[in-house]
Amino acid sequence: MAERESQIVLGLDPDPRALWPVSAPATADAASPADAAGQAMLAHCRALIDATAQACVAVKLQLARFELLGAVGRTLLGEAAAHARNAGLLVIADGKRGDIDVTARAYAGALLGGMQTPFGTIDGLGADLVTVNPLMGRDSLAPFVTAAREAGAGVLVLVRTSNPGAEDVEDLQLAGGEAVWERLAAIVDELGAPAVGDSGLSDVGAVIGATVPGHLARARELMASATFLLPGVGAQGGRVEDLAPAFAPGRAGGLIAASRSIAEAYLATGAQPAAAARAEAERLREAAWALSS
Amino acid sequence: MAERESQIVLGLDPDPRALWPVSAPATADAASPADAAGQAMLAHCRALIDATAQACVAVKLQLARFELLGAVGRTLLGEAAAHARNAGLLVIADGKRGDIDVTARAYAGALLGGMQTPFGTIDGLGADLVTVNPLMGRDSLAPFVTAAREAGAGVLVLVRTSNPGAEDVEDLQLAGGEAVWERLAAIVDELGAPAVGDSGLSDVGAVIGATVPGHLARARELMASATFLLPGVGAQGGRVEDLAPAFAPGRAGGLIAASRSIAEAYLATGAQPAAAARAEAERLREAAWALSS
Repeated sequence: MAERESQIVLGLDPDPRALWPVSAPATADAASPADAAGQAMLAHCRALIDATAQACVAVKLQLARFELLGAVGRTLLGEAAAHARNAGLLVIADGKRGDIDVTARAYAGALLGGMQTPFGTIDGLGADLVTVNPLMGRDSLAPFVTAAREAGAGVLVLVRTSNPGAEDVEDLQLAGGEAVWERLAAIVDELGAPAVGDSGLSDVGAVIGATVPGHLARARELMASATFLLPGVGAQGGRVEDLAPAFAPGRAGGLIAASRSIAEAYLATGAQPAAAARAEAERLREAAWALSS
Repeated sequence: MAERESQIVLGLDPDPRALWPVSAPATADAASPADAAGQAMLAHCRALIDATAQACVAVKLQLARFELLGAVGRTLLGEAAAHARNAGLLVIADGKRGDIDVTARAYAGALLGGMQTPFGTIDGLGADLVTVNPLMGRDSLAPFVTAAREAGAGVLVLVRTSNPGAEDVEDLQLAGGEAVWERLAAIVDELGAPAVGDSGLSDVGAVIGATVPGHLARARELMASATFLLPGVGAQGGRVEDLAPAFAPGRAGGLIAASRSIAEAYLATGAQPAAAARAEAERLREAAWALSS
């Protein structure tokens, strides 16, 4: 983060209907629509990474886009992750999984360090961070935290998401007066407590929508040592300038995720996609770095 | 359901460390541990389906187990689903996905009817039912409901899960007096209302743990037209005999999911795995059918 002077996360969320024209591939010999779409999506992701890596610290891979491709999706996901790593970026696997203990262990193995089986060790995706859904409670989160600690990785728990529907459940007021999301924040703080490092940050972070900056100060109060992943800048309406409380523990306290605002910057400016993306990522990087200290 | 006189869902949750000995494959020429484990897992799933299909109405595929296999996992998932369909069973894709609208559409496409793209139509898994996580609210659920309606499929929303951690969030008491899960139930009822059929059931159901039968009557009160998927019988402690309120709208009102109690029945009885599984599935089928009317 310090080397790049960046807290920007490039969201890789490739919509097969909105790929960069520069990355349109030769699809004549593709075996299926999924193969053709997949190759174009991977080319799009690689071009986005190449254009913006110097302004970013990580990529956030939206797993749904790759799962849509069926069997070829997981291979391309791995290739996109490898391209990001080669560009010096951390990899965030954004799958928002959550399930009972034995199932959570399987998901954690798939996305983090793999799993030992009687058939040999099966490799995982090797992500540096994974997003998880806490609805099912502590025992659904613990296997991810354990697997992440073993792999030297981290977990990002949904606390207050960036979408309008967050009001339906996350914002409900509990009998004790606090909101559901504040209770989720307390769970995040508790899970991370055993692993707060010299930086003051733990390996259990929180997803907090950049669309609700009004909640950030309270979120920081409840989770003093959590890294915040802040999606929703740009297309969803969030502004970097409003995110200062995330950086209270220091510059590593916040990761600002932007997907469409970077990938689709060229639509507004008329510039080439790569140049427009680079400029937008650099604009976000500067704004965030200036904000934090 | 009437043809089979069954409301039993065979949970396919293959743990590579606990596969049936009968299905141990020749792995010498497998390309990788994931391939070897995957072939053994698929053989295990097929044998389980063959042994129990006559006593069941559906399979529930635990997506995490297949994702652990990496690239080969999605192919094997499709093969397990096809084997279940060929045996006359419905397919439930148990992935518990939940995300913002554009992402939810991609997940829904992946698991249900696919998606049209500029590269051609990409096929989905073609599941008959998918499980979803409602933490992020209505706008994260709506794309699944829309895609399911288009595909003639259905959605099963997590409401009160079977695991101990359900107490941490789902059971929290809201300022209005009800529990979080009761609010989730109200959302399920609302989403399903436009599609209540002649059977009295809608295409939006609920996941309610069989481990908390005390909640069933209240759940049925809040969701008169929802099909309940009831996991947690057997290994997690739930008993079929306690599930009567699920069947208030009729026999189709409840689907009882059992994974380990069927697959691992042979460990307790000393019988062959297939015979023990068949006997346990048949025992569950009889108990449930007798309970409902």
